[in-house]
Amino acid sequence: MTNDFQQFEKVRIKDIAEKAGVSVGTVDRVLHGRPNVSAKARERIEKALQELNYQPNRFASALASNKKYMFHAIMPSHETNSYWSEAELGLYDAVRELQDFNIYFSISCYDVYDINSYINVLDQVLNNHPDGVVLVPQTEQATIDFCNQLTQKNIPFVFMDSNVSEIHPLSFLGQDSHMSGYFAARMLMLEAKEDKEVAIFHFDIASPQQNNRENGFKQFMKEKYPECKIKEVTLRPNPQEIEEKLTLFFAQNPNIRLGCTFCSYSYLVGEFAIKHQMKQIRLLGYDVLERNIECMKKDIISFLIAQHPWRQGYGCIDALFNHIVMKKEIKSSYYMPIELITKENWEYYIKNGIL
Amino acid sequence: MTNDFQQFEKVRIKDIAEKAGVSVGTVDRVLHGRPNVSAKARERIEKALQELNYQPNRFASALASNKKYMFHAIMPSHETNSYWSEAELGLYDAVRELQDFNIYFSISCYDVYDINSYINVLDQVLNNHPDGVVLVPQTEQATIDFCNQLTQKNIPFVFMDSNVSEIHPLSFLGQDSHMSGYFAARMLMLEAKEDKEVAIFHFDIASPQQNNRENGFKQFMKEKYPECKIKEVTLRPNPQEIEEKLTLFFAQNPNIRLGCTFCSYSYLVGEFAIKHQMKQIRLLGYDVLERNIECMKKDIISFLIAQHPWRQGYGCIDALFNHIVMKKEIKSSYYMPIELITKENWEYYIKNGIL
Repeated sequence: MTNDFQQFEKVRIKDIAEKAGVSVGTVDRVLHGRPNVSAKARERIEKALQELNYQPNRFASALASNKKYMFHAIMPSHETNSYWSEAELGLYDAVRELQDFNIYFSISCYDVYDINSYINVLDQVLNNHPDGVVLVPQTEQATIDFCNQLTQKNIPFVFMDSNVSEIHPLSFLGQDSHMSGYFAARMLMLEAKEDKEVAIFHFDIASPQQNNRENGFKQFMKEKYPECKIKEVTLRPNPQEIEEKLTLFFAQNPNIRLGCTFCSYSYLVGEFAIKHQMKQIRLLGYDVLERNIECMKKDIISFLIAQHPWRQGYGCIDALFNHIVMKKEIKSSYYMPIELITKENWEYYIKNGIL
Repeated sequence: MTNDFQQFEKVRIKDIAEKAGVSVGTVDRVLHGRPNVSAKARERIEKALQELNYQPNRFASALASNKKYMFHAIMPSHETNSYWSEAELGLYDAVRELQDFNIYFSISCYDVYDINSYINVLDQVLNNHPDGVVLVPQTEQATIDFCNQLTQKNIPFVFMDSNVSEIHPLSFLGQDSHMSGYFAARMLMLEAKEDKEVAIFHFDIASPQQNNRENGFKQFMKEKYPECKIKEVTLRPNPQEIEEKLTLFFAQNPNIRLGCTFCSYSYLVGEFAIKHQMKQIRLLGYDVLERNIECMKKDIISFLIAQHPWRQGYGCIDALFNHIVMKKEIKSSYYMPIELITKENWEYYIKNGIL
């Protein structure tokens, strides 16, 4: 056992000055990037810093600086209690946590069904000259143009939720959607008995993530259950259409017992099954939303996969802050966990933060 | 869409002084708890603080203070690459993150098989007069005595990993072990086919968590699979004993295909099964350790439940720091997620932190 209280060693400015044989004021000038230091003094100070393994008190430096930072986030329009509202909360929580560091912040939302709304928002953000940008990208040429301009202007940007392979943001925060779909198939097939077919309930929304997940799902099925047929139906989140299309789908596929949705809308299928007393149905869906949980409690949704939207939002601001303000190194991607949620463990799913 | 850059409003000392009709110096005296302020001035300042909804810059206040804090952690002795070494890393990472705030830190380890070693460590920590304590408690009278003394001395303490019901720490960070075991049974039984019996591989280590998980597991089995028999064997982490006892156990129970361990040692059973080419075996275990992952890749361990030891360690220091230094409110428990790990998603399990 150890009993020596340990502190990670601090180097004082005085120590640096002594080692370099210069005044404390000269060290201070170098540390804060101010002019009027001779080349010789600068060299001796830099050598001393290295030898002493100097770690600046970055909190104190950032607090002492009066620089203001404008961060801007661009994301889909959304309702309350949705996947995106959790991500929005994460963005705001991170900004609030950093309020002492002069971070100014704004969010612009676009209509995922309207490319012009997306382009307009991108233009407006560029005109605002932000210091850092969080973007939920759409797979459009406009995204490439926008990111090129940010790069030219030396404005760091991070991608939230979805990645675009041709573009290299400072960092990507989201799930590995292909593996997530592969995992989804593994989990859903644990519920299989004599099932010879499974359903994919595809929603008609602009989401590259959804398509990647479907591909991962199909890869698993091809590898492990090649004899099992996949029946697909495409839906929009419209109550009447859901009712009609699902009634038809289940009439045509009476043996379907297992199904997947690759977005937040699993509850729309789940509520249909509950309403029509289709007690045999077992679904896997995405995102820990109230209506999904309700279907899980009624044993219609067996599994949900959590994507940690709060953590994505919080992490995006944190990445910009650490890169721009704290000058720390940032990884090119921070994959979210592929976390399985069931009736038994959902209350312990940590939406927010470390604590 | 919104375009107004927003910052969480800051109240300046000057604003408070103006509102209260006193000097800036007087406001400063009140904010920093210094004497020589008239009752009347204090009252006016406190009213102004309330009306302006003043939020002190807690980072700056804590940095400006020269107070030193001694935190002490007490945990089981452990090997590298173990569950406890991850927790230890979390403790150190949090302390390093807070190095600018004068946190001194030390860890003392005890032998879980030796009550005297536990008692000795508790005594030594008390004699060190810490400002805050992290404890992995054992269910012993010594724990109650130690915590009573901390309470008398007004020293806050948090429990890591295990809780003791009679004691009220500042906070508990760990898993709900009963529900974790209940969830474990749900998952393991997804692998069941015609199985009429399952095994519990109980390890002879002092861990209240292990027993709670077993109880949760048995509750699920009683509720959902009352006809399924549970066969138990108790092991110690000793290679020769494992070999002998498991050989006998499987000879006596040739139909056993599914089994659980409720601690990190699943790999000891898994490696036995691999060595003896018992390819039919499917196990569920705890903790994302290398040897467990190896057994998972070979399809012997189907599932692991992660307990986030790094996060527990980090969170314990964070809880003490936020309570003692930042004067923030702390919840009485922070349950860890009950996170399912499989061959498909283990690489995305986030051991450390938000990013």
